[in-house]
Amino acid sequence: MMAKEINKIEVMEDIYEENGRLARELNTRLSAQGIFAVNVLGSPGTGKTSALLQITKMLLPAVSYVIEGDIESNIDTVTLQKAGVDAFQINTYGGCHLDAPMMIKALEKFALPKPGYLFIENVGNLVCPAEFEIGEHLKLLICSTTEGSDKPYKYPLIFEKAAAVVLNKIDLMPHLDFDKKFFIDGLRGVNKSAPLFEVSSKTGEGFDALITWFKAKKG
Amino acid sequence: MMAKEINKIEVMEDIYEENGRLARELNTRLSAQGIFAVNVLGSPGTGKTSALLQITKMLLPAVSYVIEGDIESNIDTVTLQKAGVDAFQINTYGGCHLDAPMMIKALEKFALPKPGYLFIENVGNLVCPAEFEIGEHLKLLICSTTEGSDKPYKYPLIFEKAAAVVLNKIDLMPHLDFDKKFFIDGLRGVNKSAPLFEVSSKTGEGFDALITWFKAKKG
Repeated sequence: MMAKEINKIEVMEDIYEENGRLARELNTRLSAQGIFAVNVLGSPGTGKTSALLQITKMLLPAVSYVIEGDIESNIDTVTLQKAGVDAFQINTYGGCHLDAPMMIKALEKFALPKPGYLFIENVGNLVCPAEFEIGEHLKLLICSTTEGSDKPYKYPLIFEKAAAVVLNKIDLMPHLDFDKKFFIDGLRGVNKSAPLFEVSSKTGEGFDALITWFKAKKG
Repeated sequence: MMAKEINKIEVMEDIYEENGRLARELNTRLSAQGIFAVNVLGSPGTGKTSALLQITKMLLPAVSYVIEGDIESNIDTVTLQKAGVDAFQINTYGGCHLDAPMMIKALEKFALPKPGYLFIENVGNLVCPAEFEIGEHLKLLICSTTEGSDKPYKYPLIFEKAAAVVLNKIDLMPHLDFDKKFFIDGLRGVNKSAPLFEVSSKTGEGFDALITWFKAKKG
């Protein structure tokens, strides 16, 4: 191993530790405010934003806030705001994931005046976001039928850490070779307990069960 | 900025520089062997492996080698090998991208006895792989219609660095709300010159033009 590699590992360990500490502090603060924070994870293009449009609408009259984490652009934030959702943008400018310091900074500018839900849409990426706590109460992983059924085998850490898994775009299932048994076997190989919700953000199908689960989790 | 952040930036700059140097050396060595190396990039589930099945078949009788970069699992390597493709696995064990040292190590074990093409399928990720050269002659970005048309706006760096962009899964277009004009406008906003190839790995449609382009690039 090169000296630089050792250097990198040491620096990264420090960063993980510091991030974890800040994330736990933020989580305590959010809990005290009556905010239930959900770290929304998934590949690019699995429909995280369109799922959040359904979820925030169906949770009404409960209050929902959304923070959108993107490398660049504010496309998703504008989409949510146009639909009446109270949404705020974090740009990472090249960064491949959100972290606790970014969240703390964002919450200095984005007020959460009422108790409710805070959905934080992370950067579209199945790798790096799995490793950074951002103050959340739980991680929600949004997959899609169009990505193929092998994802739990290829990106096990993010499936392991998910409190629930959403399988989106089930309306497209008739046009795909998605092997549901293989997908579920892979999921259960790394995560025995996370419920799986099959939904279509396009038609609204399947969201009832997810909403019921959210309400029970928030309590 | 925290001291640790400064530390991280310095270490990362060293790593980029060292990686760049190793990548350029590897590229020179591959050129001397008559190997044309292609860094294949894309989100999870855009069909990188199925596109490579088509490409390597259509390039015959030219020799093609494939290196599969995955966090874990060897699903894609096995798929390629079963189809008769000379394929080799690199596991990053959590790492979000390939780098030049990983490639150099892999090529100590994976022989490339004849001149031809070397396709290196990077980890499925639109962020981190854009920042690391791995000895390639060019980057090929594989997108899919099912990811949505906003990707060039959200992940501009990887679109900027692509020598060519493949839009896969065009067979699903009738079932989607994919806005092709918006996609192309976004691509051209960051990359004026990369050709766009619309293909279906499922039906084989559209690969002829890509193959002609590859042959011209390799020369």
